[in-house]
Amino acid sequence: MNTQIDSRISESLIRVRYAETDAMGIVHHSAYIPWFEVGRSDWMREAGLPYSAFQEMGYYLTVVEIGARYLRPCFYDELVTVRTQIGEVKSRSIRIDYEVINANGVTLVTGFTQHVCITHDGRPTRLPEILERLLNGGE
Amino acid sequence: MNTQIDSRISESLIRVRYAETDAMGIVHHSAYIPWFEVGRSDWMREAGLPYSAFQEMGYYLTVVEIGARYLRPCFYDELVTVRTQIGEVKSRSIRIDYEVINANGVTLVTGFTQHVCITHDGRPTRLPEILERLLNGGE
Amino acid sequence: MNTQIDSRISESLIRVRYAETDAMGIVHHSAYIPWFEVGRSDWMREAGLPYSAFQEMGYYLTVVEIGARYLRPCFYDELVTVRTQIGEVKSRSIRIDYEVINANGVTLVTGFTQHVCITHDGRPTRLPEILERLLNGGE
Amino acid sequence: MNTQIDSRISESLIRVRYAETDAMGIVHHSAYIPWFEVGRSDWMREAGLPYSAFQEMGYYLTVVEIGARYLRPCFYDELVTVRTQIGEVKSRSIRIDYEVINANGVTLVTGFTQHVCITHDGRPTRLPEILERLLNGGE
Repeated sequence: MNTQIDSRISESLIRVRYAETDAMGIVHHSAYIPWFEVGRSDWMREAGLPYSAFQEMGYYLTVVEIGARYLRPCFYDELVTVRTQIGEVKSRSIRIDYEVINANGVTLVTGFTQHVCITHDGRPTRLPEILERLLNGGE
Repeated sequence: MNTQIDSRISESLIRVRYAETDAMGIVHHSAYIPWFEVGRSDWMREAGLPYSAFQEMGYYLTVVEIGARYLRPCFYDELVTVRTQIGEVKSRSIRIDYEVINANGVTLVTGFTQHVCITHDGRPTRLPEILERLLNGGE
Repeated sequence: MNTQIDSRISESLIRVRYAETDAMGIVHHSAYIPWFEVGRSDWMREAGLPYSAFQEMGYYLTVVEIGARYLRPCFYDELVTVRTQIGEVKSRSIRIDYEVINANGVTLVTGFTQHVCITHDGRPTRLPEILERLLNGGE
Repeated sequence: MNTQIDSRISESLIRVRYAETDAMGIVHHSAYIPWFEVGRSDWMREAGLPYSAFQEMGYYLTVVEIGARYLRPCFYDELVTVRTQIGEVKSRSIRIDYEVINANGVTLVTGFTQHVCITHDGRPTRLPEILERLLNGGE
């Protein structure tokens, strides 16, 4: 049931690192993927279940698909925000949506990641109840 | 006209670096994106137009979209192959398709990148004739 | 004259990204090098001369040497601080010193970078007066 | 006893990736550190003890110090060679030396890494005999 997905948007502030730029003088397209990860990490911490704690319970949310659209470039030292929101929750998978905006609120990049829940030995499993409840917006 | 796209597949051999792994013990999902770039770089060099030469002519093939599906994990020191093929050629854009396979020929990851051609001052432009001809399989 | 180096220490807060970990389960040793860069970037911005502005004046502070000592490991999601301080200022070069500490103030990594000033065409040059004054603690 | 260190130099061929460049148009200084890792990985594999096999025996060669000197820049698509050699072997630590040269044999970067041997639970240990013998040139 997707009827009650937590619609909360977390906002992660990121200062562009020089190491993230490339010879075109802009942020390399691969550098946004770890930013998405920062986004969902912050989302979960703010929801009360840090991903590190989730891992310690014996689970991973492994990435099975990603996608990103690059609308405008981004430069060294800019301060950007990653807006992260749960897109879809199924019994065994989650889609998370991202939007990277600059200081003027202009969208630079949008993207998503699709995750399945696995145990530490690599077997797919239902989303544990604690996570499901959280993604569905609490109690 | 897409009628004559060059169907050549280039193969790029990549030895997995320790720095590309993460705390799950596998290659981090973001690390494949530079591998795709290695793939299209090799494709162009083999086609007779290294991307560095294309850049010197005043053009970039900027990335406007990427997508990747992760089917199986990949580990430190594995020898994988990126198979790269032109997916679609339009007057102003190109889609390139990738498949990462392991030493046994098993598919680990598939993906694509969508590019538009821009000049060094950032303006979109038609694919230059030299590139169009090459992508359409020569003469 | 090194007599008046600005002894100010800037502090940069960094949340460890999953992408920065490796298969040992800790932050990969190469990941600290961009953190040092974040450190000096913040130092300069706080001093009133963002490196991006310095670049626009036609200069780079290119890296000619780095060194780092790894005392204790660092983990995903930890909140660490990079403490950055000017180590030495000569007419054509600067050494910057770094210390990465965890939330309890324990030192994890120390390091330095040595820079020379070059113009955009790659020629070494004296530190411009605006930078020299700043590194020497203003007037 | 350092009297018999294996003086063999392994050579690792590396094609510079676009993702490894930065807004100065050259390879970012942090990108060489994973290249050093490629170098020692190849050295060990060629010596008959892949690091992955060493890890499976229950050991890590953790990095406790690195240093690098940057003599000349390196550009996208260049083909460089990392020359790797054992520098010093002590009962509990190893220093490995690196030299990155371009296609004309010109030295671009030199560096070293210092390692101590630890078990998977993080405790320092003597270099296991199999490794010591190998580093001392085996028989």
